Amino acid sequence: MGKRNLYLKTTPVEEARTRYLEALEKTWTMQYETIPVVEALGRVTRHAVYAKYSSPLYNASAMDGIAVISSHTYGASETSPVRLKEGEDYVVVDTGDPIHHPFDAVIMAEDLLETESEQEVEIVASAASWQHVRPVGEDIVAGEMILPSCHQIRSIDVGVLLSAGILEIEVTKKPVTAIFPTGTEIIEPGDEIREGSIIESNSRMFENMVTEQGGIPHRYPILEDDYDKIKQAIQDAVKVSDVVLINAGSSAGRDDYTVHVLRELGEVLIHGVAIKPGKPVILAFVEGKPVIGLPGYPVSAYIAFENFVAPVLAYMGQRILKKDYEQKAVLSKRLVSSLKHKEYVRVKTGIVGDKMVAAPLARGAGAAMSLVRADGFCVIDQNCEGMEAGEEVTVSLYRDPEEIQNTAVITGSHDLILDVAADLIPQMHKGMHLSSTHVGSMGGLLALKRGEAHVAPIHLLDEESGKYNDSYVKRLFQTPVAIVTGVQRIQGIMVKKGNPLGIQSIQDLTRCRFVNRQRGAGTRVLFDYLLKKEGMEPDGILGYDREASTHMAVAALVASDSADAGMGILSAARAMDLDFIPVGEEWYEFAIPEEFMGLPQIQAFFQVLKSPQFAEELKKLGGYGMEKTGEIRWVR
Amino acid sequence: MGKRNLYLKTTPVEEARTRYLEALEKTWTMQYETIPVVEALGRVTRHAVYAKYSSPLYNASAMDGIAVISSHTYGASETSPVRLKEGEDYVVVDTGDPIHHPFDAVIMAEDLLETESEQEVEIVASAASWQHVRPVGEDIVAGEMILPSCHQIRSIDVGVLLSAGILEIEVTKKPVTAIFPTGTEIIEPGDEIREGSIIESNSRMFENMVTEQGGIPHRYPILEDDYDKIKQAIQDAVKVSDVVLINAGSSAGRDDYTVHVLRELGEVLIHGVAIKPGKPVILAFVEGKPVIGLPGYPVSAYIAFENFVAPVLAYMGQRILKKDYEQKAVLSKRLVSSLKHKEYVRVKTGIVGDKMVAAPLARGAGAAMSLVRADGFCVIDQNCEGMEAGEEVTVSLYRDPEEIQNTAVITGSHDLILDVAADLIPQMHKGMHLSSTHVGSMGGLLALKRGEAHVAPIHLLDEESGKYNDSYVKRLFQTPVAIVTGVQRIQGIMVKKGNPLGIQSIQDLTRCRFVNRQRGAGTRVLFDYLLKKEGMEPDGILGYDREASTHMAVAALVASDSADAGMGILSAARAMDLDFIPVGEEWYEFAIPEEFMGLPQIQAFFQVLKSPQFAEELKKLGGYGMEKTGEIRWVR
Repeated sequence: MGKRNLYLKTTPVEEARTRYLEALEKTWTMQYETIPVVEALGRVTRHAVYAKYSSPLYNASAMDGIAVISSHTYGASETSPVRLKEGEDYVVVDTGDPIHHPFDAVIMAEDLLETESEQEVEIVASAASWQHVRPVGEDIVAGEMILPSCHQIRSIDVGVLLSAGILEIEVTKKPVTAIFPTGTEIIEPGDEIREGSIIESNSRMFENMVTEQGGIPHRYPILEDDYDKIKQAIQDAVKVSDVVLINAGSSAGRDDYTVHVLRELGEVLIHGVAIKPGKPVILAFVEGKPVIGLPGYPVSAYIAFENFVAPVLAYMGQRILKKDYEQKAVLSKRLVSSLKHKEYVRVKTGIVGDKMVAAPLARGAGAAMSLVRADGFCVIDQNCEGMEAGEEVTVSLYRDPEEIQNTAVITGSHDLILDVAADLIPQMHKGMHLSSTHVGSMGGLLALKRGEAHVAPIHLLDEESGKYNDSYVKRLFQTPVAIVTGVQRIQGIMVKKGNPLGIQSIQDLTRCRFVNRQRGAGTRVLFDYLLKKEGMEPDGILGYDREASTHMAVAALVASDSADAGMGILSAARAMDLDFIPVGEEWYEFAIPEEFMGLPQIQAFFQVLKSPQFAEELKKLGGYGMEKTGEIRWVR
Repeated sequence: MGKRNLYLKTTPVEEARTRYLEALEKTWTMQYETIPVVEALGRVTRHAVYAKYSSPLYNASAMDGIAVISSHTYGASETSPVRLKEGEDYVVVDTGDPIHHPFDAVIMAEDLLETESEQEVEIVASAASWQHVRPVGEDIVAGEMILPSCHQIRSIDVGVLLSAGILEIEVTKKPVTAIFPTGTEIIEPGDEIREGSIIESNSRMFENMVTEQGGIPHRYPILEDDYDKIKQAIQDAVKVSDVVLINAGSSAGRDDYTVHVLRELGEVLIHGVAIKPGKPVILAFVEGKPVIGLPGYPVSAYIAFENFVAPVLAYMGQRILKKDYEQKAVLSKRLVSSLKHKEYVRVKTGIVGDKMVAAPLARGAGAAMSLVRADGFCVIDQNCEGMEAGEEVTVSLYRDPEEIQNTAVITGSHDLILDVAADLIPQMHKGMHLSSTHVGSMGGLLALKRGEAHVAPIHLLDEESGKYNDSYVKRLFQTPVAIVTGVQRIQGIMVKKGNPLGIQSIQDLTRCRFVNRQRGAGTRVLFDYLLKKEGMEPDGILGYDREASTHMAVAALVASDSADAGMGILSAARAMDLDFIPVGEEWYEFAIPEEFMGLPQIQAFFQVLKSPQFAEELKKLGGYGMEKTGEIRWVR
């Protein structure tokens, strides 16, 4: 079976981070560089900066008007105006013009009376000395401290530094960060896909994360799983970089050499952290430079970066670590977690009624889309076994709270038309968004009932009446719920192109590998109904228990020869280039509690449903009837 | 007096912005471009993006172990293990390896029993079909929507897009923003300073603000105040830019041509907005492109940009406008404002006790340092005449709340040694900061009393006892206050280099132009004491009523020949290269209420006071006695 690096034990997250940062503090000498002030935005000052010049550079007029000798104005009043001569008693000035001895005050243009002479004016009030004069250094005095040390430079600071005569500034260097994608099975995006290929994308995510954390990313070409090549690459990289990231090979597989290489070249402080996802982390030093091994699964990679690489870059750049915006939310369902690790659970959030609801998403380390779909995450501490539904949790948001506020939260059965609506809403209604989570029709109604969604897309056949949806809603809700007609659509059996097994009906499914939908999905309800009608038993269908959670997921399994047939909608079959045997039409509709009908994002959703753009997109997808789209009926 | 563009009326802020953005929406056609995904961080999608490939691309092992044919494992148990042959019943797989027909399940390495043969293993439990297999498309299904339209791309999105086979993406173009500094008196930073020069720095601040708002800045060389040149420049710029900014010339001075040029070339929607600072704003269109005239004073320029340019750039880039973090705070002093405008008041904040206190800073439009020193601002609405001390206000913060939490708030008499301490604290105590506001000794004690500061630096001579500080503190406070010794320092008369007027004593001040300190300043208290001792009257001193608020400000006025003499400390005289006639020694000390003594930032301050680095810096400044620095005595 070959050699595997089984972890002996994992270190708690905080302990691992603290030990690593303390070691870094001992080994790392802070690096500085002098750069032009105009390029210093976001950089951190080494020393306090003192003004070279004052601002204003001289006594300056604060108004448009005339500069006068104040003693020449004494005694002026409404009854006995004083007449002033240009050149002798005054000079004309605009705001910012210098005021020189013997002039020592400014009178505003508005307060001057014209005379028959262009060179003379009259005034009806005396001027106090230094009135309307900005004294030299009023804003900045030469020699005064402008910025303290360890200060992150903002736009306004750039302006003030230049005003004060500072052209260059000494700042902390940006840590140069080497990024090594490794793995023999890994290919570059755009390369031809071979059997077993994995498209390399983590390094590109890291590049951007390094930039966001104030570092300079330097991504190297893919390294194959070869002990000597990895060793040579790390040895070379620590000479020219401040930090080295290796992805992946940090786990305990047969080809995971990283930890052995790092043990040979330097010191491995930590291998394996009690964090989920993200456990296979290596925290090491080679020649005094931090070298970090990051796990290969995208979500693990992301969370391990946030927890270990980001603090290292912040320390080396002397920057304050950027934190996500935190908000309290109500957990939508029970979360169980192990005492073996701290867990980061991605959540989809929504403002439903007056509370923010956090709905946990897929927890697998490979589920990168769960990170894309998520609005943030909540953390289950290592010493906590989980949290109950309805419990208040703190969500670290990485989406704008205002965007979340304006999002229609749609939870239930999946159809491609939801993607079309999500695309059109922000284009047609600026600032409005739609987010959809696919949990099947019954799952959607239950989410609606728990107050976690605004809309539940459903297609639930009532076996007794043969009608769709109303009876299910009536059973669950005591308050009025609108059912908005979506589309009529065709359900059927999806099989490989050319239908090699010659499947023509539900009966034929006994002689192939089937893939089913999850419990509570409308399509599964329909399938069960059809089996019953035919007098067939689920046990007779190979794969009845194999579940996929969307039409598209079923279609993908059939397309990849992992199954021979599955139930789904015509548009999914077309999208995957499959053959399709229709079994019947059904109503795909939207259940919406009365209190949400007036929300702007829901109104935007209605308008999109009835728009010509929406109709046109559905025509392209094919298989949808739209005669009644947007019609509302009430279930009370 | 020449031609002046007096504003007829100003438009309320929200009205001006709404009208301008509505006009922009009508005239502007959104611009798009297709770029590589690896460069798309922060950009906004034009359309929804659909996956080209599934991820995983094939059924993949979710574990390190062996791939098996599940039917070959049936019946395995502890008592009757099943033996499997490599090649025939299983193949070895690592996480991520593809699983092919006929293999349909994975058994973890940990669950395998070794046998005498390298090519055979035993198992004690059967494998369910598809166990530990990630089905094709588990994460992303080809054809599925990955990102909706109008979505701002994050690091994680870049990774997922590449995994899904997307290499290029259509996004909103970044608005190219032309920036024109104008003004005949304006010089480039680094140019030789002539009489009346103003160093141009706003355009560099704008460059950075444009970048922060997702635009591409293009800064042009300085334009002189010349109607035809400005006209030509704007005509050329609108051809190659999406937005044009002109700074300044938007006011109503003799040389402010911008509004006339814009009226000739296009349409001026707004000239003058009811905002303070920032009133002289011009909102115009030339050939369908927004052209904005911004005021010249740095603070006005900043606030006008935030209010009018930032929303335009956000609209053109289809981005959500970044907002400052908002927090409730208690106002430290009364603010009066006019009904004529909405006012942005810069505030310094601090956590004192359990509340955030917002202390208003200098309100002048020219006070750029007030923006640098500020932690944020609060807004007084146009229909509000002001707010009372102690009232709760909303502060828009542009400093990190955690940084504010760790800041020692020092309010009172100014000395250069506070700058030295502010420089050393963050270097010696990571994450700790010091902020100082200069309001004189009495001002500091009153701020301390109102709970707006942690520390008040004071040097107040008790005329009766001839002793410093204690009696003033005792009179004001009922609770225990620590007085921490700072330094002994030398006060004296600062005069121009070479002492041209031959000033030797207080008596000589009757024959020169003096500049005094503000009421409540310890230096003024000392000066009054000295006058009294000499039997002199304030009326006999020309400039007794002219006030400057720091030692350095007084020194700058003397250095620039705006005054002949002023009182201050030796280090200020040295910093400005002035002559200095000592008049006596005094104690500059720190009053700190008991409840703040244990705070980490105050402890850090003490440690800095007693550090060798601090002593060394003070030696360089000169004129400080440090025998008792850091000693604590209590006033109860």
